[in-house]
Amino acid sequence: MDVKEYMAQVGRRARAASREIVKASTAQKNAALLATATALDSARTELASANQKDLEAGRSKGLDEAMLDRLALTPARIDAMIEGLRQVAALPDPVGTISDMRYVPSGIQVGRMRVPLGVVGIIYESRPNVTVDAASLCLKSANATILRGGSEAIHSNQAIAACIRQGLAAAELPQDLVQVIETTDRAAVGELITMPEYVDVIVPRGGKSLIERISRDARVAVIKHLDGICHVYIDDRADSGKALKIALNAKTHRYGTCNTMETLLVAESQAEQLLPELAALYATHGVELRGCPRTCALLPEAVPATEADWSTEYLAPVLAIRVVSGMEQAIEHINRYGSHHTDAIVTEDLSKARRFLTEVDSASVMVNASTRFADGFEYGLGAEIGISTDKIHARGPVGLEGLTSEKYVVFGDGHIRQ
Amino acid sequence: MDVKEYMAQVGRRARAASREIVKASTAQKNAALLATATALDSARTELASANQKDLEAGRSKGLDEAMLDRLALTPARIDAMIEGLRQVAALPDPVGTISDMRYVPSGIQVGRMRVPLGVVGIIYESRPNVTVDAASLCLKSANATILRGGSEAIHSNQAIAACIRQGLAAAELPQDLVQVIETTDRAAVGELITMPEYVDVIVPRGGKSLIERISRDARVAVIKHLDGICHVYIDDRADSGKALKIALNAKTHRYGTCNTMETLLVAESQAEQLLPELAALYATHGVELRGCPRTCALLPEAVPATEADWSTEYLAPVLAIRVVSGMEQAIEHINRYGSHHTDAIVTEDLSKARRFLTEVDSASVMVNASTRFADGFEYGLGAEIGISTDKIHARGPVGLEGLTSEKYVVFGDGHIRQ
Repeated sequence: MDVKEYMAQVGRRARAASREIVKASTAQKNAALLATATALDSARTELASANQKDLEAGRSKGLDEAMLDRLALTPARIDAMIEGLRQVAALPDPVGTISDMRYVPSGIQVGRMRVPLGVVGIIYESRPNVTVDAASLCLKSANATILRGGSEAIHSNQAIAACIRQGLAAAELPQDLVQVIETTDRAAVGELITMPEYVDVIVPRGGKSLIERISRDARVAVIKHLDGICHVYIDDRADSGKALKIALNAKTHRYGTCNTMETLLVAESQAEQLLPELAALYATHGVELRGCPRTCALLPEAVPATEADWSTEYLAPVLAIRVVSGMEQAIEHINRYGSHHTDAIVTEDLSKARRFLTEVDSASVMVNASTRFADGFEYGLGAEIGISTDKIHARGPVGLEGLTSEKYVVFGDGHIRQ
Repeated sequence: MDVKEYMAQVGRRARAASREIVKASTAQKNAALLATATALDSARTELASANQKDLEAGRSKGLDEAMLDRLALTPARIDAMIEGLRQVAALPDPVGTISDMRYVPSGIQVGRMRVPLGVVGIIYESRPNVTVDAASLCLKSANATILRGGSEAIHSNQAIAACIRQGLAAAELPQDLVQVIETTDRAAVGELITMPEYVDVIVPRGGKSLIERISRDARVAVIKHLDGICHVYIDDRADSGKALKIALNAKTHRYGTCNTMETLLVAESQAEQLLPELAALYATHGVELRGCPRTCALLPEAVPATEADWSTEYLAPVLAIRVVSGMEQAIEHINRYGSHHTDAIVTEDLSKARRFLTEVDSASVMVNASTRFADGFEYGLGAEIGISTDKIHARGPVGLEGLTSEKYVVFGDGHIRQ
């Protein structure tokens, strides 16, 4: 197969479909989502047997247990895909919203209309449920989607794609709106990210090295975050009860997520009292502590942190702790070592909360709340296609609105420029 | 000079300054803008003599008259720079605006705060006034700016930069907020567009080949448009008076601007009556007509258009004309040959106007108005840093808001994720 030519065909078909979908009504898009849910429910046997093929191939290739677990399409995961489709169908349709329509001095009326981006390329690894989750958000926002899943999930993804095609057909929408790439050739990714004529944006989901490679080589915009080095800063004006609750939750609620705290910063006036209490709590969860010299002086169980610890995303029960002179130094630390993902202050001081919100340069900045809240569902977006730590286009959790853009619409009555 | 090291220093200084400017008040930023205006007014002699050096060097290098004209800092152009600074000072400050703040089910309060992008790199050619125009918009939106003007304007740009530094000093803002690159080495551009650690977005202003090169090689986001192949479609339900006015204005108001009409599309039912009338009007302006076969059959003065004409931005008194079967074909033509900049329909039919607005995939879509209105001032943005035909981040005329982004801000009261 000529991968370059194949991908160009996929791209042309996606572009053509994206021109058609702008004509679709909200009801038609929702009908396609609900019909896909029904198709998935009816295809449980086919899905299970396709997934079985992938799992067997994965085992014989020696994939590790964590990878095989992500690959598995259990009945509960199929339920979750179906429920996800229904939730996306129930979300308000952002497309076509006209805002700020107003008369300007020349007499024309100017406003902004929310429109789809066009064609979205999704590159992901083992989890087959991403196929449905991503496609449904793109469909609701009237984008065409090109999906490139991991080669280890190819049979599962194709089986899911068949259900999506049934859903599109039931709503009389073009089949090419959602295309799952049929080749496992790695060159397909290289093509997908360098076809600005056919693809408007790439959303990569997976490990840091995959995302770094894609960002480096892409010729189109990439919505992404590389890592989540999130901080909680306990201010000298913090309420100690809130501080303990938040510092514990931000680290131990889940270890493998990007909004988990990786470094705790504590004002020196609080350190002596709070750190031993916190260390005892962390000990009950088996969290390893790595501290700056002052932390280690207070906590015998802490091992000395190295410079590298401040910029490490552990994704594990490990926490770096630094005692800082106050908020100024905390902000400096966060802006220097953080990944601009999510950072929180615990304080009762209004002026300091206001300064922290303004000066911390991160996608989500929080006051007296756990970093674990940084999430599309928790923020009320209904769903998320990913999280962005870039400042261009979308920042933070990206939902339906992040898959759209605004164009200017102008009404006149024969107006000409004088 | 080691250009790579020099540019890295410029970048580091810009990044540091961008962290400081977020603390500045609106009043402080406005004070810097107004003090720069005063400094320019007091430095007219120095500006004239610096500009004289550039003009003499330009003449001896054999620059053409159009280039020399763009390079000249006449007293009127200095007046315009001063007036521009005052206008930007008078605009509302977008930074810090918090929108959509609301409680979500977990009890946290989530909103979005408008924040600067960080560091903006501006790459431009001969016009020295861009130095002030671009720097003032970036300053107002709390961004640091790195300016790379044409080598032919280096003395003028440095003289302007000295005035900006005076303005910054008067308002006690960091000098590094606005840096004009001091080397004319072309390698500086290559560095500027590939330092994502120091530069967040590039705005190139100049010819198509410059912008194409920058877009191709940049490792950061680029706010740009390559060309403006704008259309007016005269529908079969058009009011002929409005059609004549708009078609004439969109072509002849100014020839060299990106929002000038380059192709006129006419519904076949209108062609026989309107085209001869229009041709007579264009003749009084000396506009050369290039037509499809049906156009040429109606207009003896028209020369046959080639396929290339449909995708050419003439920037000159030349117009391509095509007779189409109706709106469907017009939309197809625009989406295929246009540059997604600005396109207009002339019609009295509401349903067709609505369809045109939805289906034409351009940054500005207009009903019964001249394409010449696509402009930041005309749209009420106050000023524009450029026009974008991309869908990511900003689309259409880009003003202060396009130089900002939104981050999430979250308030809790000790809230943790359950």
